[in-house]
Order: sequence, then structure tokens, then C-alpha cells
Amino acid sequence: MHSERIAYLGPAGTFTETALAGILAARMSGDRVGDVDRDHGDVDRDGDVDRDHGDVDRDGDVDRVPMATVGRCFEAVRRGEVDAAVVPIENSVEGGVNATLDALSASDPPLVIVAEHLVPVTFVLGATAGTRLEDVRRVASHPHAEAQCRAWLSDHLPGVVVEPAMSTAAAAAGLAHYSPAYDAAICAPAAAERYRLIVLAEDIGDRPATTRFVAVRLPGAVPQPTGRDRTSVVAYLRENHAGALLELLEQFAARGVDLTRIESRPTGAGFGEYCFSIDLDGHIREPRVAEALKGLHRLSPLTRFLGSYPRADGASSRVPGWAGAGGFTAAEQWLEGLLED
Amino acid sequence: MHSERIAYLGPAGTFTETALAGILAARMSGDRVGDVDRDHGDVDRDGDVDRDHGDVDRDGDVDRVPMATVGRCFEAVRRGEVDAAVVPIENSVEGGVNATLDALSASDPPLVIVAEHLVPVTFVLGATAGTRLEDVRRVASHPHAEAQCRAWLSDHLPGVVVEPAMSTAAAAAGLAHYSPAYDAAICAPAAAERYRLIVLAEDIGDRPATTRFVAVRLPGAVPQPTGRDRTSVVAYLRENHAGALLELLEQFAARGVDLTRIESRPTGAGFGEYCFSIDLDGHIREPRVAEALKGLHRLSPLTRFLGSYPRADGASSRVPGWAGAGGFTAAEQWLEGLLED
Amino acid sequence: MHSERIAYLGPAGTFTETALAGILAARMSGDRVGDVDRDHGDVDRDGDVDRDHGDVDRDGDVDRVPMATVGRCFEAVRRGEVDAAVVPIENSVEGGVNATLDALSASDPPLVIVAEHLVPVTFVLGATAGTRLEDVRRVASHPHAEAQCRAWLSDHLPGVVVEPAMSTAAAAAGLAHYSPAYDAAICAPAAAERYRLIVLAEDIGDRPATTRFVAVRLPGAVPQPTGRDRTSVVAYLRENHAGALLELLEQFAARGVDLTRIESRPTGAGFGEYCFSIDLDGHIREPRVAEALKGLHRLSPLTRFLGSYPRADGASSRVPGWAGAGGFTAAEQWLEGLLED
Amino acid sequence: MHSERIAYLGPAGTFTETALAGILAARMSGDRVGDVDRDHGDVDRDGDVDRDHGDVDRDGDVDRVPMATVGRCFEAVRRGEVDAAVVPIENSVEGGVNATLDALSASDPPLVIVAEHLVPVTFVLGATAGTRLEDVRRVASHPHAEAQCRAWLSDHLPGVVVEPAMSTAAAAAGLAHYSPAYDAAICAPAAAERYRLIVLAEDIGDRPATTRFVAVRLPGAVPQPTGRDRTSVVAYLRENHAGALLELLEQFAARGVDLTRIESRPTGAGFGEYCFSIDLDGHIREPRVAEALKGLHRLSPLTRFLGSYPRADGASSRVPGWAGAGGFTAAEQWLEGLLED
Repeated sequence: MHSERIAYLGPAGTFTETALAGILAARMSGDRVGDVDRDHGDVDRDGDVDRDHGDVDRDGDVDRVPMATVGRCFEAVRRGEVDAAVVPIENSVEGGVNATLDALSASDPPLVIVAEHLVPVTFVLGATAGTRLEDVRRVASHPHAEAQCRAWLSDHLPGVVVEPAMSTAAAAAGLAHYSPAYDAAICAPAAAERYRLIVLAEDIGDRPATTRFVAVRLPGAVPQPTGRDRTSVVAYLRENHAGALLELLEQFAARGVDLTRIESRPTGAGFGEYCFSIDLDGHIREPRVAEALKGLHRLSPLTRFLGSYPRADGASSRVPGWAGAGGFTAAEQWLEGLLED
Repeated sequence: MHSERIAYLGPAGTFTETALAGILAARMSGDRVGDVDRDHGDVDRDGDVDRDHGDVDRDGDVDRVPMATVGRCFEAVRRGEVDAAVVPIENSVEGGVNATLDALSASDPPLVIVAEHLVPVTFVLGATAGTRLEDVRRVASHPHAEAQCRAWLSDHLPGVVVEPAMSTAAAAAGLAHYSPAYDAAICAPAAAERYRLIVLAEDIGDRPATTRFVAVRLPGAVPQPTGRDRTSVVAYLRENHAGALLELLEQFAARGVDLTRIESRPTGAGFGEYCFSIDLDGHIREPRVAEALKGLHRLSPLTRFLGSYPRADGASSRVPGWAGAGGFTAAEQWLEGLLED
Repeated sequence: MHSERIAYLGPAGTFTETALAGILAARMSGDRVGDVDRDHGDVDRDGDVDRDHGDVDRDGDVDRVPMATVGRCFEAVRRGEVDAAVVPIENSVEGGVNATLDALSASDPPLVIVAEHLVPVTFVLGATAGTRLEDVRRVASHPHAEAQCRAWLSDHLPGVVVEPAMSTAAAAAGLAHYSPAYDAAICAPAAAERYRLIVLAEDIGDRPATTRFVAVRLPGAVPQPTGRDRTSVVAYLRENHAGALLELLEQFAARGVDLTRIESRPTGAGFGEYCFSIDLDGHIREPRVAEALKGLHRLSPLTRFLGSYPRADGASSRVPGWAGAGGFTAAEQWLEGLLED
Repeated sequence: MHSERIAYLGPAGTFTETALAGILAARMSGDRVGDVDRDHGDVDRDGDVDRDHGDVDRDGDVDRVPMATVGRCFEAVRRGEVDAAVVPIENSVEGGVNATLDALSASDPPLVIVAEHLVPVTFVLGATAGTRLEDVRRVASHPHAEAQCRAWLSDHLPGVVVEPAMSTAAAAAGLAHYSPAYDAAICAPAAAERYRLIVLAEDIGDRPATTRFVAVRLPGAVPQPTGRDRTSVVAYLRENHAGALLELLEQFAARGVDLTRIESRPTGAGFGEYCFSIDLDGHIREPRVAEALKGLHRLSPLTRFLGSYPRADGASSRVPGWAGAGGFTAAEQWLEGLLED
């Protein structure tokens, strides 16, 4: 018997690691989060799949494997090197995480989402022991984090120079591991703790933000509907004509299906060639959702189903009265009655 | 064994009788017209159902029974007094025949259309022997016919007084049966012939017109698809809100179904309360049509199916590539594959 | 000085005459009904325009001129023989009055609606003095009226034969003027009174019905908005393709304009060639309505404006917040600001 | 007199610098690219605005000022420190550049786009002199560039470790300036040249890609229409209800305006709260575009106009016949005629 291995977008100390912990905790409590199937064949545990980007943490019988990019996380899942991967998909301030959206659309064999988790994103200003706020002249962070802390920086560190870093955790790690050309890092509380930084200021974000993370694995049995589900799909326009997006949206409207996220992504074939990454309210086992998905598939066989899974916010589906399962059954029986006569 | 009895909107000599003959001829030739089921139980042939409005003509083993109103035709079908009824449903100049549209929507038990026939509508000016065109001072006709011959009347009979009649055939019959207060009748060629009138002028309509007639019977097996079919349906708005008609049309657009006729009819519940009498291109046994009908039924369980039958104009269905039966099968298999995993 | 002449769809004793009286009364009271402009040039009063269909009633300084058809009413307006015409346009049970809808669409020069009036439609069973209900064997009426009284007839006169007549008033007049082949007439209370019939039964309609009448004249100044207005228009599809009706409805939806009636009418060019007779909520002087009308005109220059006038039901316009006049002014100023920079 | 200063997303050697050169060349040739207004007040040239991220290049009378982030480029424009800024907005493979989209939406005072330029994106593998392809064990690049070269890496450098860098130019600069932990960099040809690297392999991208760059400045006179224009706008949903996106798209469809790009961006107010960054085909001085923009403004006064400017691809606008300027003029005159009567 092998222990479960779950990849995540590293390094350790980012919000993704927090999300992974949350998903595991929810699973333990039997609560609302789809079980990440652990019996996906026999996995070779010999090689550390991503030796350069962090150490594997063992926690109970789960190995948490940090990886450098979303693409590598998904590759590891596809190769069976890990059982699942946890990656960010959307931030309430920054929007969709393109690397994740594109890797989900493009991957072959396909991957599906089996759970999601929300992590409030807060930032601290971390530094090495002995640094005082008034000494800080240069700060490092990821540009997204800088953007979310702009007002605080302007108020408390006017004139500070901000150095871009690959991730907030990398900025924090730099302070810990060598003597970089900056004095402080904007990072997650978890990163400050991991790299043993002192916290010069807490909660320095200009406004509350949340990141949504998803657990992804190879296709298997779709989790059962809970009445509070989300379904993710990549939809393609039938052709690149005016009105094609209206046509696509009609497939949802005509079945009473509401969207919770829609983002255009280039197909790579040239400017103006889009597909749409869509989250919708409902589960593939609800007839209104199944019918809408089949409609998308008729518009384009490239349509990709990315999973039905419980919503982390616990919100119940809003189903118009006419689009409930009862209406589908009644319509089916009516039609059969007409043809039987 | 009883002979078949078919009611039609009389009196004899109207275009409806011509349509009935056409439908019977098409059936004999095995051509394109749905078989009017003749084995609908045992019918009491004693009473002449509509003694006042014309005589029953026996032609081969078909009795043709003229009736005074569309409503009576349908009542006779529903009671089993006749096997089918032929009535006008739409004129290319005058529009839908409301009496027919409403009687089809409202009838209980429901009736269905099994065949349609097109009759070019032409008008003659008929009179009793001895009348000359220059003697005509007063003309009788149905107001619709008068409207379609207005230019001819103005050119050839300026100043003539036009007397409204219940039907063009009634105007002709009046000349034959008593001495009415008019000198000539605008009527169908068949009526002039039947009532032994002389024809003072032929083809006096201002522009070509065609009337579509339908054969209606009690529900039975739906005729098989021919690839050139029409389906009739009465659709109801989900609620009387702005945009409800858009919502209804989306049910067709989302399945690639084209409409050939749409007419609003009041439900009788008050101003602004409509249902829609709709003809669409296709057959209930095509999945795109079946799905659209089920969608209408979900919006309102009052939706009424009025039959799928071959188009009299022989035009092939225009099916967008993505809405063909193959696309439906492929989408169904795709969805099943997703759920089986 | 000449007195005003108003044509109406006769004969006297129909509901149209009641509507005309209502429109005149509303005008006298200064209430809610657009003034029917009486100063439309000098009118030749010599000839009785429609000698055959009833007598002109003089009431105060208004001559009421009954005419046999809607077409003749409109011709008289166009020729200046009358100042206005009152005709039925819609019945809550029977739907649009096609003769009126088509004559409004087609007339050249155009006519416009300046006022509307609602008349509850009730039916009585009238007969000559001495007739008892139990003696009635044959009843005459217009088929629409028969349809609306079917349940009463079935309950109180089972087996009665119903004779079709050109109008309910004509059925009543027949009893008064000669000895017809029927014993009683289904007609309006006003007709029974006019033709001095006794009333064998009152209010015999199966359910309440209302007819909407309109006063029509030559184009002139559009009445000022009242906040409770209706606008009538005939709209044409851009081309006869699938989705053209959706395209037309978008012109309204995109400006927050609600429809209160939409009826398809054939253009006469062949089956499947429609225009749409539309009533909308609002006044041409409201920017949202003006913009929607201009949008229709761009889709087809055949678009015909048929008037903005106060609603007889007194209902206030339902204007979405974003579509109010303030939003239009703000958007205009915003755009001008962008271009001025 | 001061020379013109134009900021760009640095460092030198990225594709953005190439785009800036292209925009300046197009302006010199009087060709198709909106003039970047150079007389924007008196600018203090004392401070190097972004001392840390590269040197200002003087070329003729234009100073090219590299900056570290899009946000800083825009701040410099807003403060009058530079006359304009050139930044990437969209890549045919990677999609919209969120930093640019968000900075354009959010900036206050607003900025507008005055020109665009397309740069084909090609990658080389650069290294320091003496390095051979077979020696390469570790490669550095921006993850987007790595993603676009994945097939080449897998074929020619199987097993290579890829190190993420802040930009392709930063990866190249690292090789030039210090001894990093990697042997080669995936970068633009211009970066290899600038940092005097040898090129181990050319054109290593898996498929052709193009990046679109825009020149942005403070609002001023909108460039005149050329018949081949694009307009950029940020549109907000009226409310966060189902169908709100359909409602927004109707504003374009109802005026015959085609979209060339639509991307959802979070408003920051929470998950599911979006605005849409939209490029459309046409110019604000065309009435169909002006009307669509006003429609968006009515749906939400937050709507932001981001400029009308010539398309770099030179494609002519596709205007449906009914949506041309002539149709707008005719509709306007028609409406005025109706109201004048």
C-alpha cells in the first residue's frame, strides 16, 4: 500500500499549500468536498518529481509535493506520479489564473476538477530579524501582490522601490536564504512563518481578496450531486462569426442554467479566435446541465467537460422552476406519449 | 364496412372542397401526403350532421360532408361522426385563419394535422345568364375577396356598390337560388360552375394568392418523417413578462430549428395574454425538433403538439450542420462516456 | 363652419358605435383621450358616403357616419370626407382585427391612431315581441359571437341551429326588418335596443371579453406624452432568415421597451413573408421609444409609425431604471464629452 | 523645447521595445498609426523615472524610457513624466495581458489608446560564448515563453531543467551580467543581441504567435476615422443577474457592431463580479458605434471609453448594410418628419 501523493503549486508557504491543507481537512470531516480518489494505480515514489522546487512534506499518509509550475503539476498527475494536484484557478481581484485555465483546456489525456477550496488572501510585510519598518528602502514581491498593496505602500513606505519576484514565497525565501538587494518581502503569513521572517506589518492588502483553488485528477467517477454544485467546462464557438457568443450563451439560457464565471481564452490559432472557460451553477447529473453540455458539444465537439464538484461557498443552486428535474421528466413523458399514440 | 367520411368547410364550391379533392388525389397516388387514417371505429352514418349547409357528396367510397363552420367540422371529428376534416389554415395574403387556429388550440380532446394542401386562389365575377358586365351595379362577396380584387373593381366597375356576404360561395349561391339585391358575385371558379353562373371576368384578383388547407383528425400514429416535413405547435409564454417571447424563440434557436409561421393568438384571459401558433421546419422524430418541443413544454405544460406532416411545397428541411441527428447522437454518446468513467 | 364628421364601422347598434360615444365623451371631459383634430380642411358634406349601410346620426355638432367596412372608413378619412374614423382593432378573446391591422399597414397616405377606447363586450339573446325562449329553434349571429356564447347555448338551447350572419347587428336588424328564417339573434344590448327587440336572456357570453377600438385620422401633430401612452408600429423583418424575429425584438430589448401586443401579418408576397403589427408601452417622444423606432427603420425603411396616444386602461409605463430619459441624457453628455476633449 | 519621452515595459530587449520602434516608424511614414501627441505640456526631465530597470535610450528626439511594470508606465503618463507609454495588451497564444487590461480600466484620470502595433513573437535559445547546445542542462525563461517552446525543448533538450524568470529579457540579462545557475535563456532575438549572447537555436517556438501592443496617453482629440478602426471599451453588467451578459451583447448586436475581443475581468468586488474588456470593430465617430457606447453607458455609467484608433492589421470594418451611417441619417430624418407633422 502506498500513501497518497498530491502535487501543488509551490514553493511551500504559498496560499496553495494552505488550500491543499483545507481540502484534506474537509475530506477528513466528510464535509462537502469531493473525495480525491486515492486508488489510482501503483505509483512509483522513487524520484522526487520536482527536486529543485522544494521538499516533499509528509503529513499522515499524504505526501505533499511542491512543483514549480501548474504545467508540471498536471504532467505529474497525467503520468501517475501523483494522485492529484492542487492549483489556484481564480482570484477575486486578479481574475482567472491563465496558466491553470489553459493547462486544463489543453491537457491530453483530460483532467477533471474534483474539489475546490477558497482561501482568503492576506499579505504581511516580512523581513529578517532586526529590520525596522523605517529602514525599509526596497521591497520585493510578485507584481500581483504589489498591485493589491499599493495604497498601504504609498501611505507607509512612500518612495520605496519595489522589486518584482517570481512569487511572493520566492521573495520571502530570498530573504531567508541569501542577502538579496531588498530589505523586505510582501508575502503570505504562511511564507513569513516558514522562512522565519519577522512581520513588520500585517494585513496590508488594500481590500479583501480570496483565491479559489481546485483539486484536479484523472477522470473517474463524477462525484454525486449535492444540490450545491459547480460544473466547469471549456466551450468553443461554432464559428468565428458575429453573434457566435450569443449563440453559445443561448445554450445555457434555453435550459435555465446560470453562469458563475466566464472567461475568454485564445485558442492559439490567431487573434480573435477564442474559447471560453466557464463555470456554471449545477451538476452534470441534473438534466438541465446535461442538456446544456450536449448543446455545447453539438456547437463544437471540442467542448471539454472539466468536472462537477461541490461549491466551496456552499451556495445552493438557483434553478428556475421550469428548469427543474421534474419539468424534464414531464416533458420527456409528454413527448413519449405523443409518439406512442 | 363503412365508407370514409370527411367533413370540410362548406358550402360546396369553395376552395376548401378543391383542397379536399387534392388531398384525396395525393393520397391515391401514394404521393407525399400523410394517409388520412380511415379505420377510426364505427361511425353512425344516419344523421346528416349539417343538413342545412349543403349536401353530402359521395365520390368513390368517400363521403364529403360540407359544414358551416370550422368549429362544427372539428366537433364532428371529435365525436367520431366523420373520420377527418379539411379546413383552411392560412392564406398568403390574408394570413392565418383565426377560427382554425383557435379551434385547434382549444379543442379537447386534441386534434392533429396529418396532411396539408395548397390551392391557388383565383376569383371570377359570376352572374346569372343574360347579365352583361356593363349592367352590373351591385356586387356581393366576402370582404376578404373584395379586398383582393379592389384594383380590378376600381378599373372595370368604378362606382359599383359591394355587398358583404358570409362567403364567396354564399354570394354565388344567392344568385342561383333567389333574386338577391345584387347583380354579380366575386367567387371561386368552382362556385361559378357549381351554381351554373356565367363568368363575366376571370382571374380578377390583384395579385396571386394561395391558401393552405389542412386535414385534421384524432391523434394516432404520427406519419413517418420524409425529410420535407412541417410541425405545428401551440406555444405559451412562461409568464407575461418582457422578454418572454425572446425566451420562447431561444428554444428553437438553441436547437437549430427554423420557423415558417408564427402568429400570436389571445388566450382569452385578457389583453396582452398570448399564445403563439407556430409552424416549424422539421418532424417530431428529428431530435432537434423533439428537444425544442420538450423545451417549450418545460416553459409551459399547456404546450400543444398539432402534428408533423409532409410539406405540400415539397421543400427540404434546412438543418444547420451542427443540429443534424448525427450531432445529437455524438453529444449523447459523449455525455454517457463522461458519466461512465 | 362645418360640424365634425366621424366615420365608424356600422351598422348602428354595434359595439363600435358605443366606442365612438365613449371617445367623444372622454374628449368632452378633457380626460385622457387624445383630441381628435377637427380642423382638417373643408369637407364636402353633400353626399352621404355610405348610403347603403345606415343613416348618419347627428349628435351635437358631430355627425356619426356608419360604414360597411373598415376599408371604407379609412378611405373616407383619406379623402377628407370625414375627420376621423373609429374601428375595432383587438378583442381580448378573438385577437387582432385583421381588416383594421392590414388597412392601417397598407394605407397610402398613412393614417395614425390618436385615441383608443375599451368596450366590454356582452351579448344578449334578442327576439321580436311575443317570442318565448322555449320557442327558439334557430338563432342567428356572427360566428365570433356564437363561439363566445357556446356554453350558454348548449345549456339553455340544446339542439338549437345557429345561422351565421355578417355581424351581430345584422342578425338583429334582420329580425326587425323582415321575417328571417331564424327566431332570435345573439347581439349587443345596444343593437337589441336600436331594433326594438325584446331580450330573452342577458349576458350570455361564456367569459368576459373586451374590445379595443381606435380613432384614426390623417397624420398631424402627435399628442403630447402623458406617462401612460401606447405606440403602434408596423415592423418588417430585415430579411426572411431564421433569427430575423429575434433581431427585431432586440431593437426593443436593447432600449428597455416592453411590448403589449405583437401580431404577425402576411405582407402578401407569399407564405412565410411577414410583417409585425406591434403595440409598445411608451410614447415616441420618450428617447427609448424614439431610439427603438429608429432601430426598426434601419432594419427596414418600410417601418410604419401608427401613432402614440394615451392608453385607455390608464396603466403607467413600466420603464426600467436604466432606460429612463435621464439615462439617455447622461449617455449623450458622456459621449459628447469624449469627443470634445 | 523638450524632446518626446515615451515609456515602455522594459527592460530593453523585450518585444515591447520592438513595438515602440514600430509605432514610431509608422508615425514617421504618416502611415495608418495615430499620431502620439507630443505637446503634452512641459515635462521635468531631471529624474530618471525608473532608474533601476534600464537606461533611457535617446533616438532622434525621442527618449525611450524602460519601466519595470505596466502600472509604472501608466503612472508616468498620468503624472506627465512621459508623453505616452507602449505596453503589450494581448498575445495570440497567451491571451490578454491582465496587468494592462486592469490598469486601463482602473486608472484615474483615464488613459486612452491612440495606436496599436503587432509584433510576431519568435524565440531563440541564447547563451554565453563558448556554450554548446549539448552542454545545456538548465534553461531560464518566463513561464509563458517556456510554454510556447515546450515541444522544441522536449525534442532537442530532453530532461533539461527549466528555471522560471521574471521576463525573457531578464533571463538573457542574467547570463550577461552574472553567473547564474542556468546555462541558456529562451528570449527574443533582440534580447540576445542586446546582451551579446550567441544563439544556439533560432525560432524555437512551437507555433507562430503575435503580440499586440498599444500606445497609451492622456485623453485628447480622438483620431479621425479611417474606415479600418478599432474601439476599446470597458463595459459593466447592469446587475449581476443571469442574462446580464446577453443584455450587454444585445447593445452591440442591435446596432450591427462586431466584437474582435471580449475578456472578462473581475471588478474586485468578489467572485462572480465581472466587467468586460472589449475591442470592437469601428470608430466612436460612426453612429452605430456611438449608439452602442451610449447603450452601454445607460446599462452602467461606469462604462469606460478607451480609445478609437486604426487597426494595425489594416482590416476594413465589416458593417452590415442596415447599420451604415446612411441608415442612421435616414432613420433620424424619418423620425424628425414624424414629429414635425
